[in-house]
Amino acid sequence: MHFASDNTAPVPPQVLEALIAANHGPAMPYGAEAAMATLTDRLRAVFEAPEAAVYLLATGTAANALSLACLCPPWGAVFCHAHAHVEEDECGAPEFFTGGAKLTLIGGADGKITPGALEAALAQGGHGVHNVQKGALSLTNTTEAGTVYSPDETAALCAMARAHGLPVHLDGARFANAVAATGASPAALTWQAGVDVLCLGGTKNGLLGAEAVVLFNPEKAWEFELRRKRAGHLLCKHRYLSAQFAAYLADDLWLKLAARANAAAARLAEGIARLPGAHLVHPPQANAVFAAFPREAHRRAHEAGAQYYLWPGHQSLEGPAAEPLSARLVCAWSTSDDEVDRFLALLGG
Amino acid sequence: MHFASDNTAPVPPQVLEALIAANHGPAMPYGAEAAMATLTDRLRAVFEAPEAAVYLLATGTAANALSLACLCPPWGAVFCHAHAHVEEDECGAPEFFTGGAKLTLIGGADGKITPGALEAALAQGGHGVHNVQKGALSLTNTTEAGTVYSPDETAALCAMARAHGLPVHLDGARFANAVAATGASPAALTWQAGVDVLCLGGTKNGLLGAEAVVLFNPEKAWEFELRRKRAGHLLCKHRYLSAQFAAYLADDLWLKLAARANAAAARLAEGIARLPGAHLVHPPQANAVFAAFPREAHRRAHEAGAQYYLWPGHQSLEGPAAEPLSARLVCAWSTSDDEVDRFLALLGG
Amino acid sequence: MHFASDNTAPVPPQVLEALIAANHGPAMPYGAEAAMATLTDRLRAVFEAPEAAVYLLATGTAANALSLACLCPPWGAVFCHAHAHVEEDECGAPEFFTGGAKLTLIGGADGKITPGALEAALAQGGHGVHNVQKGALSLTNTTEAGTVYSPDETAALCAMARAHGLPVHLDGARFANAVAATGASPAALTWQAGVDVLCLGGTKNGLLGAEAVVLFNPEKAWEFELRRKRAGHLLCKHRYLSAQFAAYLADDLWLKLAARANAAAARLAEGIARLPGAHLVHPPQANAVFAAFPREAHRRAHEAGAQYYLWPGHQSLEGPAAEPLSARLVCAWSTSDDEVDRFLALLGG
Amino acid sequence: MHFASDNTAPVPPQVLEALIAANHGPAMPYGAEAAMATLTDRLRAVFEAPEAAVYLLATGTAANALSLACLCPPWGAVFCHAHAHVEEDECGAPEFFTGGAKLTLIGGADGKITPGALEAALAQGGHGVHNVQKGALSLTNTTEAGTVYSPDETAALCAMARAHGLPVHLDGARFANAVAATGASPAALTWQAGVDVLCLGGTKNGLLGAEAVVLFNPEKAWEFELRRKRAGHLLCKHRYLSAQFAAYLADDLWLKLAARANAAAARLAEGIARLPGAHLVHPPQANAVFAAFPREAHRRAHEAGAQYYLWPGHQSLEGPAAEPLSARLVCAWSTSDDEVDRFLALLGG
Repeated sequence: MHFASDNTAPVPPQVLEALIAANHGPAMPYGAEAAMATLTDRLRAVFEAPEAAVYLLATGTAANALSLACLCPPWGAVFCHAHAHVEEDECGAPEFFTGGAKLTLIGGADGKITPGALEAALAQGGHGVHNVQKGALSLTNTTEAGTVYSPDETAALCAMARAHGLPVHLDGARFANAVAATGASPAALTWQAGVDVLCLGGTKNGLLGAEAVVLFNPEKAWEFELRRKRAGHLLCKHRYLSAQFAAYLADDLWLKLAARANAAAARLAEGIARLPGAHLVHPPQANAVFAAFPREAHRRAHEAGAQYYLWPGHQSLEGPAAEPLSARLVCAWSTSDDEVDRFLALLGG
Repeated sequence: MHFASDNTAPVPPQVLEALIAANHGPAMPYGAEAAMATLTDRLRAVFEAPEAAVYLLATGTAANALSLACLCPPWGAVFCHAHAHVEEDECGAPEFFTGGAKLTLIGGADGKITPGALEAALAQGGHGVHNVQKGALSLTNTTEAGTVYSPDETAALCAMARAHGLPVHLDGARFANAVAATGASPAALTWQAGVDVLCLGGTKNGLLGAEAVVLFNPEKAWEFELRRKRAGHLLCKHRYLSAQFAAYLADDLWLKLAARANAAAARLAEGIARLPGAHLVHPPQANAVFAAFPREAHRRAHEAGAQYYLWPGHQSLEGPAAEPLSARLVCAWSTSDDEVDRFLALLGG
Repeated sequence: MHFASDNTAPVPPQVLEALIAANHGPAMPYGAEAAMATLTDRLRAVFEAPEAAVYLLATGTAANALSLACLCPPWGAVFCHAHAHVEEDECGAPEFFTGGAKLTLIGGADGKITPGALEAALAQGGHGVHNVQKGALSLTNTTEAGTVYSPDETAALCAMARAHGLPVHLDGARFANAVAATGASPAALTWQAGVDVLCLGGTKNGLLGAEAVVLFNPEKAWEFELRRKRAGHLLCKHRYLSAQFAAYLADDLWLKLAARANAAAARLAEGIARLPGAHLVHPPQANAVFAAFPREAHRRAHEAGAQYYLWPGHQSLEGPAAEPLSARLVCAWSTSDDEVDRFLALLGG
Repeated sequence: MHFASDNTAPVPPQVLEALIAANHGPAMPYGAEAAMATLTDRLRAVFEAPEAAVYLLATGTAANALSLACLCPPWGAVFCHAHAHVEEDECGAPEFFTGGAKLTLIGGADGKITPGALEAALAQGGHGVHNVQKGALSLTNTTEAGTVYSPDETAALCAMARAHGLPVHLDGARFANAVAATGASPAALTWQAGVDVLCLGGTKNGLLGAEAVVLFNPEKAWEFELRRKRAGHLLCKHRYLSAQFAAYLADDLWLKLAARANAAAARLAEGIARLPGAHLVHPPQANAVFAAFPREAHRRAHEAGAQYYLWPGHQSLEGPAAEPLSARLVCAWSTSDDEVDRFLALLGG
């Protein structure tokens, strides 16, 4: 019963098989392997973006920070949600890679930027030389609260950014889950809505460690390549990245894995919502469930070895039995119905 | 006949098997997997350094640059060979990670820093506020010229650095080849000689993409962890790094792979040295051969599809047939005697 | 009638005379002039801090950013008020000089950090490797809202910082006004309360362009010197900085200038408070008045050429005559009673 | 007898008078004072560059580093002479401001870049993603060796840079001395020869502390302004900078001061060249003399209190009396014939 994160899951067999298949004879290093060109074509097709530049690297933090560094100058502000991964979970990587840009935090319920809050922040953003300049908008889809932006919602926020001359970055560590959840096309959720750069996650959705950066406008492609190399993120035996990602896209594996995780989360959310004294904290739209339920149920889960985070973290298992504590429960491609049901049975008592 | 680089080679079966073995059930992410603790113990034992802190990441450039950032302040000078990888092949990664330190280049034949040249540079190095301060010494073993430093040579250079209060970084992208070549113990070539931080390569010697940073003095361990995370180099599904490295160390696989590559290079060097009109450019002490031989031999090799670099790069296959052109020929763990012999036969005409 | 800022004022005669007096014969550059040693002694005496290291430079932004860079690592968070100068008016200088630290904004009425808000932010501040680490506390006295912290208030906030192991920076661009307003000793408002580094303003209080950085703990002195030089803030003909500052401290000129500016602001605030339809926005404790008064009064002032900022900036002189608009009115050492009275007469109509 | 540097000299009366004249009533801060617009027009006229953007700041190190940051990306190489001020005397400021660019050192006698050496370095400069990219050329005129580039020499080097797509920075800390020495127009020595950005020194040639940056192509003007502010180099009471510089240009004062310093150096050089056992180390073309003369002459000068640097610095006054030691002797606008003659008399013994 592992709901701590989708990054604790193993890798589906197709991906390991792809590594094994790639492991024959010499291959050109640093992305010059033939498989990378094929993958680029495949990603362009999936995104209906024949001009897009595509790069692979090993972590989402690097993908995000390198992308932001290409979009926002050192004296710029990146507008992002107050609970965005770039703000809370990357130890200041965006500040490091951009050369000291500032993250300007925007509020909004359920992990989503409120259009009005963004508009106000943009209106207030610096013009004069004493202020940090407006630099870029950074969205996250699936959000950190397990919710998703629709294509229309994405487009509305991107339009505001564009009206102020700002490019848009999309942290898509769980983008596959958003596609699976909305049924929208990858294009509709990205460049058609106004996104300039997508960080397309692979790792949280089943790969060993591979993320793609998709620059819909390839103008910054060479700059991205230099920044990636200079940051030590150009992998030498790159064939093992492209092999992972090719397997990920083949037969829509990425969307099947995401759909599986989403379904597990839906099953989990429905079960919790039915529990006495429980309620959902955010609408569970992808593969994470944020829910509150009685402390005694947490205790039973804890004693049985279930793994997940109390969220926010300062809550304690000590205290009145009936008091609800909130938790984050993340499902992965590998989460089974049985695992969910056993967990729900535990909570039910 | 691939002698372009050791990074074009595939991965030995033991390493892929280790990945497959690691791919069961959930595992804690970010280095908290149980296998990492075991690996740390193993590396400490190999290096006879029970206090050492050990970290894994995916590229050697990152390993070097993060290490240097821990050793050298932004206003410091890193003393390194004029042809060091940190100077020539990392697109300024050391400057980026250190926050703008300066690389001060030291000469020396065959890729090795001459003690006298280092002493002179250290003596001249800045004291006053107008100058960049002396920051760190960076060595490379196996060097970029395919030569190795003995423990005594390493100790002599480290002693000079220490006399000026400088810590020492060792770029060990091909450290295994140096151990195999010298027969010295890993300890003798590192901390016993005065090295503070070793970047221990795995990728060029057979792994998919895994390097270890060994901090013999763990004082900077937490800083290293923060810098690694902030740089996007803390891998999420870290079990696939620790599994690679555990397989690498098991049964001395790392040294066996290196010995194989060194032996191939020796065979190649001996063969070339016997060719009419050929000579070795640097003493071939590890897995690379720098040699000059007639242009017509290069043409035959080229036409037969052999892959390697003319070194330096500005030479041309057009010109007098007998004129010698110099080349770099790198052998990998997977280079076969047959491959070497076919290549030598081609050169011989 | 100039209330736009204290930085539009000229320089008192004593300061120009000191420049003239310093302009004889050769002098050692870069702070090695004899007058700098004398000044250091004088500043140490004023602050009862015989060990303090003292440095001069030409701008407050540089003083703040260099100080923070010495106190907070690149992966740290600087806790500061949401309207601090370091956040709002320095175009990201702290992020630049620190190498990408993050400013974490704390709320509080009247420009002052609320102890509870600081405590909450510190409690929440990152411990794990994924989070920016707690780095430093930055206070401002006189605040950007024209209020002052007492020694006790300063000490309370510093104690919270210290309990979390954080050093404290004090932006004292208008520190003289705070000393004059509170009657507290310079020591009581700084190191005795727990401040590690003071940026002691001179420019806004009458100098041509000179600020002092006082490191009460000299441990970081050499680092500060290197950072200053490397940032281009070590002035060559330094005698013209030390001469300014010496004149500033002689006969308590700095406190007399500040007292004059404070008195002008008090006179202005009292006058405004008596106007019908007017009220003070923040308690006027130093040399700035934040007040709201009817639009028609603003119009009269505007037409008569009075200079000051509507605060916040989005307000318009167009609209209902009686509606109050808020403004920031800053007095300088050179503001005369006559200037204040003429302005009040204008507002009164 | 002060020949240590031109930065130990006082300020000519015209400059102090200008400060006094500027010290009346309020003035807009941050370069918005009326005098700055006038000065910009004046500088444009002097340089025959009606589109140029002009900025003032307090130090030459800042002027150089901010200019280079506008011209060279973080992953770029700045080609400069091995003894350039940006390399040797700025504690790594260019690396700091550019975000980690690399200085690639070019040789050349008498402080001047040899065209062939530049061409070779440019030809070798990185193209691929593993190398630092070619970023900018940085020249210095007057050089650190007291020599000057003619317009033709400047143009030849700039043309090489342009052929590789590189912009050109000119460190003109002693540009006035070069104009005075060559008799060439300011335009001929800068933009007409291919220079993009000039750092026009004031401080070493008589100002308290003021340097101008002239962007002949104003495309980067706003970026420069943001970088200057963010670096803390936008002076608040800016009127005291523009007043200095206006006085500097009025009646060609800048060229008269430089001519006086150059004449003093010529007198000094001629005198030394006539001494037995003495010779000039570099041709004395501006206001510095590099010369070698017997140790006993140095001893006499030293005992009489003459100030200058043995150059290079490792030489000692202890040793054989007749052995020549080399020195750097810098004349300022304020160096008198009497001072020179007394010094020569001392050396003569």
